[in-house]
Order: sequence, then structure tokens, then C-alpha cells
Amino acid sequence: MDAAQESPVQAPTPTAASTALLTDRYELTMLQAALRSGAAHRHSVFEVFTRRLPEGRRYGVAAGTGRVLDAVENFRFTTPQLDWLADQGVVDDDTLRWLADYRFTGSIRGYGEGECYFPGSPLMVVEGSFAEAVILETAILSILNHDSAIAAAASRMAAAAGERPMIEMGARRTHEAAAVSAARAAYIAGFNATSDLQAGFQYGIPTTGTAAHAFTLLHDTERGAFTAQIDSMGRGTTLLIDTYDVGEAVRTAIDVAGPELGAVRIDSGDLLMLAHRVRRQLDELGAHKTRIVVTSDLDEYAIAALAAAPVDAYGVGTSLVTGSGQPTCSMVYKLVARGASADPDAPLVPVAKRSAGAKASRGGRKWAARRLDAEGVAEAEVVGTGPVPDSLRDSLLHRDLIRAGEVVGREPLGDARRRHLRSRGQLPLSATQLSKGDPVIPTEYVEGRTEH
Amino acid sequence: MDAAQESPVQAPTPTAASTALLTDRYELTMLQAALRSGAAHRHSVFEVFTRRLPEGRRYGVAAGTGRVLDAVENFRFTTPQLDWLADQGVVDDDTLRWLADYRFTGSIRGYGEGECYFPGSPLMVVEGSFAEAVILETAILSILNHDSAIAAAASRMAAAAGERPMIEMGARRTHEAAAVSAARAAYIAGFNATSDLQAGFQYGIPTTGTAAHAFTLLHDTERGAFTAQIDSMGRGTTLLIDTYDVGEAVRTAIDVAGPELGAVRIDSGDLLMLAHRVRRQLDELGAHKTRIVVTSDLDEYAIAALAAAPVDAYGVGTSLVTGSGQPTCSMVYKLVARGASADPDAPLVPVAKRSAGAKASRGGRKWAARRLDAEGVAEAEVVGTGPVPDSLRDSLLHRDLIRAGEVVGREPLGDARRRHLRSRGQLPLSATQLSKGDPVIPTEYVEGRTEH
Repeated sequence: MDAAQESPVQAPTPTAASTALLTDRYELTMLQAALRSGAAHRHSVFEVFTRRLPEGRRYGVAAGTGRVLDAVENFRFTTPQLDWLADQGVVDDDTLRWLADYRFTGSIRGYGEGECYFPGSPLMVVEGSFAEAVILETAILSILNHDSAIAAAASRMAAAAGERPMIEMGARRTHEAAAVSAARAAYIAGFNATSDLQAGFQYGIPTTGTAAHAFTLLHDTERGAFTAQIDSMGRGTTLLIDTYDVGEAVRTAIDVAGPELGAVRIDSGDLLMLAHRVRRQLDELGAHKTRIVVTSDLDEYAIAALAAAPVDAYGVGTSLVTGSGQPTCSMVYKLVARGASADPDAPLVPVAKRSAGAKASRGGRKWAARRLDAEGVAEAEVVGTGPVPDSLRDSLLHRDLIRAGEVVGREPLGDARRRHLRSRGQLPLSATQLSKGDPVIPTEYVEGRTEH
Repeated sequence: MDAAQESPVQAPTPTAASTALLTDRYELTMLQAALRSGAAHRHSVFEVFTRRLPEGRRYGVAAGTGRVLDAVENFRFTTPQLDWLADQGVVDDDTLRWLADYRFTGSIRGYGEGECYFPGSPLMVVEGSFAEAVILETAILSILNHDSAIAAAASRMAAAAGERPMIEMGARRTHEAAAVSAARAAYIAGFNATSDLQAGFQYGIPTTGTAAHAFTLLHDTERGAFTAQIDSMGRGTTLLIDTYDVGEAVRTAIDVAGPELGAVRIDSGDLLMLAHRVRRQLDELGAHKTRIVVTSDLDEYAIAALAAAPVDAYGVGTSLVTGSGQPTCSMVYKLVARGASADPDAPLVPVAKRSAGAKASRGGRKWAARRLDAEGVAEAEVVGTGPVPDSLRDSLLHRDLIRAGEVVGREPLGDARRRHLRSRGQLPLSATQLSKGDPVIPTEYVEGRTEH
């Protein structure tokens, strides 16, 4: 890999673009109806959670939290947007005036980014008036559902790779903006670098790269291409060796670069067999330190299968950015409690959908904790309403993210990376088995107002 | 659905944001090496194609073409981007100077947006110097791979739905920017409207919406919620009837709105059984014109299974925006020919990767045509190099998209919609069978310089 820059990972800066129309139309029409009925001003508690993990997955990974903070900060309606809403008759003039002044003034608490989660985990809790909280639904869910799906896949891959570096290189396989967020989520869940320059520019994630077959084909000979690359990038570069004949390419590569060649990349064929063969050949040529990077259609299973092969780094594309078969989570944003009246001091009433068992949910404002056993291994996700039992006070999972409209929870990506490693490390060992199974710890509910 | 505005569909306008860093790092390092070796100036032909359709799919749908034109127009390096590239040492000063002046001056031809495609179809052909064409790879592939995956799923769903309207409502299930592009791709492939306001704002796609369970739960009673919604939106609105008891909700809905109620929405439970029951109940209450919208975890199979049910419209979320199990295509961007030297008049040399059978490709600048039988039914995708046989001159598939750097192929979305309907309509009927199968027509190659 060429010159992966370990640039300092900074806190993401909000982009200027308005996120206000990344919103389903019904949010605004519900807002209008609630403004008219007066219910819009009832204090409301919305909760993001998922009823289940994707099939067979042992744990989920909360990701996108930092991007949600940017999105809420940039949730401002611009004049062209308001004009368009008026022109389309989406909402009436009173509602447009309300939207023009919109700033979220409520609070958001949630799982720290990188934290593992389970069915029923209250990943994010958004409180404010119904009006100000309901219209954030679509943007918040889009971000969390996408980023957490990528992070969950990345975490499995990183666990399978162990100490070997992982490079995210799936930009070309997913939407161009999703690619940037995918690189961010993968970095949080354990990847070391990305091919995506925008992810480096925007989030400070280390970027890296090699060369494509086109570069070899452009030149009259493979030797000419290798020479050009080394002239430009130095001997530490990574040469792509599977355009024509792999054995021939390795000979040419070392002939041109000498044994100081940084790495070779194999992007097709039987990677297990080729890795062994190329390693042997490199060693015979004295290039003991030249590394082998493999990059062809890898997923967590292929990575695990290469554990005993002489491979030094993995590049992962398609399967990472598509969540390795699970490109989205099933997170929902549900009203779980609201004021009995529009009076801000009115008592909170827990609410929940009742019909159709599978989509039923639990009302009430919730806390969550991860209960550890005597060895410090997680044994349950505990989700409750009412007072927190004393025994769980030190293992609460919510962080303050926004308080009275002010973002207070922004953090460097490195913090999320470390949180993920720590969180996954606390799970029972079977969490990182790749075979399908149930969530690795159960979710327990502590209901009501009981004192513990 | 409330007030789906049939706004005129306009040609997309380029956004101001630079797309230049939506690029893999290796594109720029290859550029640098090729600038040094001189090979950067060789005339080059890159081709976008896919070796196979997603498993079991009968046809692909080209989508994203219009977005590619925007992306190429906005592929300009800004000063902060160049400063960052310099700071990170991604490329040297000569290359930075070249990037600062970058404008694509070559040509792009490609399948019209909405056109069906098959394995080996040369979906897009990008010509220019190696330098100017190679760095567009990542952005072009991101757009086409994502949008075409969504369009392919949408086309199957729209075919299954027949004349019944289809509403795209998956924004919350995918990346917030991908959601907007997904709404666009779905509209091209036959959907009628989207819930995503940004897709309406940016592309003129009709937007629509109903209400969420939260709106019902916010109010003290279901009757209170329905009354508030009708007060605000009028009797033509769509009431959500599965928050508590469906039968009770239908009674309340008609009691409040009268038989002029526009529609009811069912979002959970056994949709087939509920649709029949609700239809019967609505008819008994005299609400013969009140429509039934269903929206719970639909995909093309569920839509087909509801064909005989009294359903008036489908809302599709997750399965649409995730490509119904195939969230990406496997399109690649390959150098297929390049000049024998940097002289612009040098003859073109076809090139192709040779190693590892599965990833081998065919060299040469290609044309493509869809051969129809006497009844006007497609019987083969014909892909060739060299002269076009006279019999195929009228069925060529490439349109000029960019000529000498100027966008010439922009078109209203409605044109792409019509093209898709026409293109799918020409395929053998088995194309729209939902069961897995081979591509519905074979791809034939006409090689070399033979005259026909």
C-alpha cells in the first residue's frame, strides 16, 4: 500500500449542506396536523431501537452517531427549500413559518458510537416537543441504519483478520456518498485505512492505494508499468501482479524494484494457493520483507479461511459496503412516551403500538446497561424504565449527545474505535464466531417504577 | 396518500459540490506515475460492463446515467482539496498542478438511462487521455453500480404491481444521500412517487405520504388523531389504521371522515387477509371509493402474492433501497484500448487482462445493439468491435452523452422512464417472471474487423 498517512483523526466538522429535506413527506404533514390540533407541543420521547439483529448475527455495532449530530445541527430549512414546499403545497403557511425558524432545542442521549447493541437496546433517545422531534425521524434512521450495518460487517471482518491490517476499498460498489460514510463506519469497527479520498479529507481517516490493471495495460509491457510506478512512488510501493502471469510478474517486480519492494497485490484467482506460491517465490528471490496484499471478493469467511496463509493485509470492497449480506439494520424511531397535555409540566404517558404482535413495542423512557459477570464478561443487556438499580449504575450505556439543542457529545473517531474494541472485547468469546447464532447475550427488561 | 404532486419532471441540475475526491487514492497515484512515464497522454478507451447479472436475474436496468453527467461536470478540484492532497503527500506538485486545471475534455457514450442490459453490455464508454479518463473510475462506478441495482429491483416490483401505483418509501433504510438517488432510480424503473422530499426538490419526482403510528399515539385517542389529520389534510387523506385494532380503526375512520375518505393504510399483520377484511368493512360502511394502501416489508414476491387482493397501492421501503437482495451490480471500468504511443493519431491497441479466467475481459472499443425478431421481440444483445453490420444499424444502443467535454446527453427523467418501459416491453415475456433464471436473452459477440 502506498503511503498510508496516519493523519490525526479529528472530530468531524459539520458540513454546510442542509439536511432538512432528507425527510419523508409525512413528517411535515403530521407536523402540520399536530400544530393545528395543538398536540405538537406535547413533550415527546422518541426511541431508536431494533426488534432483532440481522439473521444469525451475534451483536450489532452502533455507528453513525457523530453523523447524526452533524445532521441535526444542519437541519435548517433554506429559502429555496421553503419556497419549494410552498409551491408544492406540502404544508400550509403556518407550518412553513414554523419550519423557517426550526432549530432542535431538545435533548438526545444514546449509545456511544462503536458500542455493541442487541435487540431492544434503546440506541438513541430523542426528547423535545413532538413537533421538533418527529421531523428528525428519517434523517436519524437513514444514518444509523446504514452506518451500523456497515460497522457490524466490518467488525466481523476485523475480528477474523486479527492483527493483519484491513483496507476498506468498496467505494465503487456503493453510492458515492454512502461510500464515504461506509469508510468512516469501517474505521470505527476496526479497519485501518480506506481507498476513499473523500473519507480522508472529511474525516481524517488514513487513505491508501495500489494500482489497477489499467495501469499495467496502459504500458507496452508489464516491466514498463512496474518501472513507471516505482519511478513515481518509490520501492515501498505495492505492485499489482495478476494482469498477465503471476509468476512472471513477481520475477519482473523484484527484478525492477529489488528485494526492497514494499508489497505485491493479488486481485484474482485462488488466493490461498497464490499467496503460498507468491510467498515462496518472493522468499527465493530474497524479498523476505515484501508483503502480500490480497483483495478479491473478500468477506469475513474468506478472510478467516486465509488465516493460515502468508497474507499481510486484506482489502475489502463489495461485501463491506453492502454489510456482508445485511445492508441495513431494522432500526425504528418510535414514540414511547408523551406529555398528557401540552403543558410542559404534564406527566409523561408511556405509549406503544398495540396491534400485530411482531411490530408491538414497549412504551416508556428507557435506560440501558450492560451487566458483566465477575470476570468482566457481558452477560445481559438490561433495559429498563423507572429508577436504575444501584448494581447497574456503573454500566449505563447512554451518553449525552445533545443537551437543550447544543451538541455536547462530539468526539474524535479514535474514541469510537477504542470504544468498539473495548465493547466487543467484553462480549463472550462466541460473539466473534462467524457461524449463525442468536444474539450473544440476552436482553432483559426491568419494567416500571420498582425500586431496587 | 396525501397530495402527490405531479410536478413536471425536469432535467436534473448539477449540484455545486465537487465530486473530485469521490475517488480512490490509487487513481491519483496512477495518474502521477503515468504523467512521469508519459503514458498518461495515450488516448484511452475505458468501458463499463458487468460480467454477470446478480444471481437469477433475467435483465439489468441501466440507471444513474444522468447523475454521472452531473458528477463529471462537477469533477473539479477545489483549493481546500488540493491543499489536503498536498498536505497528505498523496501526489507530487506536478500532479497537483495538473489536477488544479482538470476538466474532462473527452467523450462519453453509453446506454440510455432506463435501458435494459445484459452480461457484457458495454454500458458506458469513456474516451480521452488515460490521465483524464482514469480518475473518473470510482465516481462513475459508484453511481452506476448503486442506481442500477435499485432500478433493477424497482423494475421487478413495478412489473409485479401491474397498473397499481407504487410508492418508494425506503429513505430511512439506506444512507440519506443514497435514498435520494434510490428514489430517482425507482422512478425511472416504474415507481410513481416517493416519500423523500429531497428527491422531489432535487429531481422533481412526485412526493407523497400518509401518517405514522406516532401521530396516533401522540393524541389521547385514535379518534382524536384521525380528526386532527382530517382537519389538517382534508377527507382525501390516508389514515393509518393498525395502531390499535384494525376493525375499530376502520369504523372510527369512516365515522370521522365519512365515505369520502381517500384511503386507509395497513402497515403490519397478514396483509392479504387484512386487505380483504378491510375492503369488506369499507364497502359495508358505504366507503366504496376509499382505497387501501399496504406498506409492510413488501418486495416483488409479496406484491405478486397480493395481485388478487383488493389493494390499490403499494409502498415499498427496505427491499427497494437494498436492491431486493442485490444491493450492488458488479460493473467494472476497464481499459479496453489505448494508443500505441502518446501521439493522438497513434493506432489504438485493444488490451485486456489475461490471467485468471473469471476476471478476463475482451479488449477493443465496442458497439452494442439489441437484435429483435420479426415480432419485435428481443432475441440477442449483440456486442462487437469493428464495423456495425447493416442489419443492426437501427438497433444500436449507445447515445452520445458527452462530446469533447460538453454534456450533450442530459434528458428529463420522464424520457428515461419511457425508455425503460419500452425496453422491458421488448424483452421476451419470461423477463418479468420472478423466479430465478438465466439472462432472458444471450449476449453474442461480433469480433474484429470483419465486414458484414
